[in-house]
Amino acid sequence: MESVQPNSPFGIASLFNTIRSNKLFEMVVVTVILFSALLTGAKTYDISPQFLTIIEWLDYSITLFFLLEISIRFFAEEKKRNFFKSAWNIFDTLIVIVSMIPIEDSELALVGRLIRIFRVLRMVSVIPELRTLLNSLLKALPQLGYVALLMFIIVYIYAAVGTTFFAHINATLWGDITVSMLTLFRVMTFEDWTDVMYETMAVYPISWVFYITFIFLNAFAFLNMLIGIVVNTMEQENAEQWQIDHAGEPTLIDLSRQVEELKQLIEKRHS
Amino acid sequence: MESVQPNSPFGIASLFNTIRSNKLFEMVVVTVILFSALLTGAKTYDISPQFLTIIEWLDYSITLFFLLEISIRFFAEEKKRNFFKSAWNIFDTLIVIVSMIPIEDSELALVGRLIRIFRVLRMVSVIPELRTLLNSLLKALPQLGYVALLMFIIVYIYAAVGTTFFAHINATLWGDITVSMLTLFRVMTFEDWTDVMYETMAVYPISWVFYITFIFLNAFAFLNMLIGIVVNTMEQENAEQWQIDHAGEPTLIDLSRQVEELKQLIEKRHS
Amino acid sequence: MESVQPNSPFGIASLFNTIRSNKLFEMVVVTVILFSALLTGAKTYDISPQFLTIIEWLDYSITLFFLLEISIRFFAEEKKRNFFKSAWNIFDTLIVIVSMIPIEDSELALVGRLIRIFRVLRMVSVIPELRTLLNSLLKALPQLGYVALLMFIIVYIYAAVGTTFFAHINATLWGDITVSMLTLFRVMTFEDWTDVMYETMAVYPISWVFYITFIFLNAFAFLNMLIGIVVNTMEQENAEQWQIDHAGEPTLIDLSRQVEELKQLIEKRHS
Amino acid sequence: MESVQPNSPFGIASLFNTIRSNKLFEMVVVTVILFSALLTGAKTYDISPQFLTIIEWLDYSITLFFLLEISIRFFAEEKKRNFFKSAWNIFDTLIVIVSMIPIEDSELALVGRLIRIFRVLRMVSVIPELRTLLNSLLKALPQLGYVALLMFIIVYIYAAVGTTFFAHINATLWGDITVSMLTLFRVMTFEDWTDVMYETMAVYPISWVFYITFIFLNAFAFLNMLIGIVVNTMEQENAEQWQIDHAGEPTLIDLSRQVEELKQLIEKRHS
Repeated sequence: MESVQPNSPFGIASLFNTIRSNKLFEMVVVTVILFSALLTGAKTYDISPQFLTIIEWLDYSITLFFLLEISIRFFAEEKKRNFFKSAWNIFDTLIVIVSMIPIEDSELALVGRLIRIFRVLRMVSVIPELRTLLNSLLKALPQLGYVALLMFIIVYIYAAVGTTFFAHINATLWGDITVSMLTLFRVMTFEDWTDVMYETMAVYPISWVFYITFIFLNAFAFLNMLIGIVVNTMEQENAEQWQIDHAGEPTLIDLSRQVEELKQLIEKRHS
Repeated sequence: MESVQPNSPFGIASLFNTIRSNKLFEMVVVTVILFSALLTGAKTYDISPQFLTIIEWLDYSITLFFLLEISIRFFAEEKKRNFFKSAWNIFDTLIVIVSMIPIEDSELALVGRLIRIFRVLRMVSVIPELRTLLNSLLKALPQLGYVALLMFIIVYIYAAVGTTFFAHINATLWGDITVSMLTLFRVMTFEDWTDVMYETMAVYPISWVFYITFIFLNAFAFLNMLIGIVVNTMEQENAEQWQIDHAGEPTLIDLSRQVEELKQLIEKRHS
Repeated sequence: MESVQPNSPFGIASLFNTIRSNKLFEMVVVTVILFSALLTGAKTYDISPQFLTIIEWLDYSITLFFLLEISIRFFAEEKKRNFFKSAWNIFDTLIVIVSMIPIEDSELALVGRLIRIFRVLRMVSVIPELRTLLNSLLKALPQLGYVALLMFIIVYIYAAVGTTFFAHINATLWGDITVSMLTLFRVMTFEDWTDVMYETMAVYPISWVFYITFIFLNAFAFLNMLIGIVVNTMEQENAEQWQIDHAGEPTLIDLSRQVEELKQLIEKRHS
Repeated sequence: MESVQPNSPFGIASLFNTIRSNKLFEMVVVTVILFSALLTGAKTYDISPQFLTIIEWLDYSITLFFLLEISIRFFAEEKKRNFFKSAWNIFDTLIVIVSMIPIEDSELALVGRLIRIFRVLRMVSVIPELRTLLNSLLKALPQLGYVALLMFIIVYIYAAVGTTFFAHINATLWGDITVSMLTLFRVMTFEDWTDVMYETMAVYPISWVFYITFIFLNAFAFLNMLIGIVVNTMEQENAEQWQIDHAGEPTLIDLSRQVEELKQLIEKRHS
């Protein structure tokens, strides 16, 4: 609306804002992230030293491009404080900054490589649909919390019982409570659970009760959680939909009041 | 509202009630239960005798603390009879009483250890959200009952048929009806079920029909149960929600009656 | 209401009807069926010849009891034709008749034993809740039909392709189209599917595409079926519920007509 | 309505249209496709050369029949352009044309055989119910898109991390990023995933965290997708159903307006 001077700080913000909002710019960023992901993948293959040098140079360019992109987004923000209010911006900035630290030491090189891998996660922060999806995933998290706690209690108790009775049969599977919990998680996924069972049944023939009750309890708790979430989600959606469908429409209360007014009007006129 | 004398029995109940309702007290109880759970886990590791002595002392303190806590809850109850009407209170009291029995005998020591493990279940009785969750789980139980019976009949018939034909092939898997049912439960979880099948197919090439029909019948019954529960739960919730949404609102019947009254009013006035 | 003579055929029907409707009689029948099931199971254990003789005698008594029970139900029916209109009655009668055929031949003895096993299924025909459940299962069957056909087409095509390419690698798994379909069903249940895949990947490194696409296609079709059934079932239930909730209530159309009548009434009176 | 001359092109279209719409014709086509599918299956068995010759002749007849059928459908179409607007028609035509190419070369013979297998897919294009089902499957596809992308990102990152750490432990499973992704897909299906885990745990005891977090992340994303689709589908169905149920019915807005008009009428008459 008002003409801004490109030299003024506000003008630069506006310019950066134009770039940031540009659909092409978004496409370029996604492409670079994808390319960065492919590069991460390429490095896992056996490649010639020459090609490796090229990849390293490409890696530097990507880091530079990400620095540029984050700068544009930063300068496009009018109030610099708001920039760091978004968790996604902080995440992006961290990834870029850590990518820039020159790492020579072989041990830290591994850390540097891991950070480059996590650059793929920037895909989520750049594509709005994925961001929406992740937000809805996080919203469902508290609903899962107490069921997860209940299942943990079940696993913990069974692990304690399992360790008490089966530790002397197979220490690798039932040696201590941590190992037992891992074994029970394995039983939950039905992965060779009969091998585990047959081994303990050789000593305690009745021990199949332990496994069968464990599987049923967990399946039951899981089932209930699933149903709970479906029902909850649908209720919320239905309620929201109902609000939208009937927004601005008079309620039955309004209508009843209208008829009541009419009645009083007639009574007044005739009295 | 009324000043109570701390010496009178009612005053003590009130005092205990204040303690019981205290949020901090609840937190302390949960912490002690968690600590008790960790202790149970710790005992499954190889630990030095010194540390074991410490653990045993901690164990005694926890038992004492639980005794104290249950006493507070008991004295906080005005009518002592109501205390034992709650299944949770009975459960808690039982756990505490059995924990206190001094066990020296090595065989009974195992039982004592098991009871200490079940102390973790007190988590459910203390955290209200978990109690609500468990109640909703128990409410869904009768719905599962008849489907479970149907699946049991399916498994029983297949086990009887399996034992009749396959007992001479592999007595470990199909020796008698109990073992056959366990084998069929294994097939239901898809755990190495082809190994079981290929073995019997070597003798009866057509026996794959036995397994495939069994898997389909059970999957179908299970699926139907799942859908049944989802639909039932949602209907109940919808009905409840509808009641809440429309509470106090006039129905179409009310409205129709209002308009009818208006009509009679007009007819009267003009006659 | 009218006094019936016990000697008249109608009186006998009435008497039998009283027996059939008796709750105690139903309990006795369920108990005998359960006992018959346990007997079937007991025969799979190694038992002494003496005990076997007892079991055989019990078996005869059960067959006689079933004959009696079906006779009571038959004579309780006023119109004898209606008795055979119920599929359950035909099923029950068949089981009883076949149980009564004396079988001496060792080969046919197996058939006789199988029929005794299927007597457990009479549990479904006797308990009304199980009959309702089975009916609702059968109602969902046509909905499954076309999805099952689609999945069969997918499996058939993959089996044909698999046989063409992999038959020379492992004839046991991919020898002809029947065997290939069984192998693909195994892959669908994720049972050691990687063993199957790694074997063919040794010859055709790209063959993982075959398995991954197959798993995705089937999982997708299955998922869609599941959702379809949930949605269909709920819609029906909702529609029925809506009918019940709003039965006898005036619709908005009725209300609109009422107001219109009122308008015409006022216009008439004032003209 | 108007008498058409069988010799005019329009008359032929009408004649072909009659054939195409004939229920018997549809049945014949489905039967031939089924027969063609069985033939494809039969060829995977070891068969005598004589029988093979018969099969080949049957194969030619089926190709000819399909050519005839597609011609009928083509000539039945009044506007020839519309024929190729349907993806199913293009699919059918392609299958028929490619089936007709004479293939002598042994390498291309494989391609020819594959095309004959895909003729089974014509079942979908001929049976209307299957076509509807497939359309609804395709409609749900975009909803799956972003969740699939999210799961792919999860798998990609874990594959990159897995290759970095585990490549030296087992190159067959973790050699490069493609192999690692296949291994992780295997872990997702719970297929012998503990074997994979125990192997890496021997070197990095903490590596179970890698697998457990991976399984939970994917299960969580999958669960959310499932719920999302159920909720979305039902909302759409509910909205459609609501439209149908209430079509032509006056809304509360209409009713409110009616009462308002009545009020104004009364006020006018009395003023």
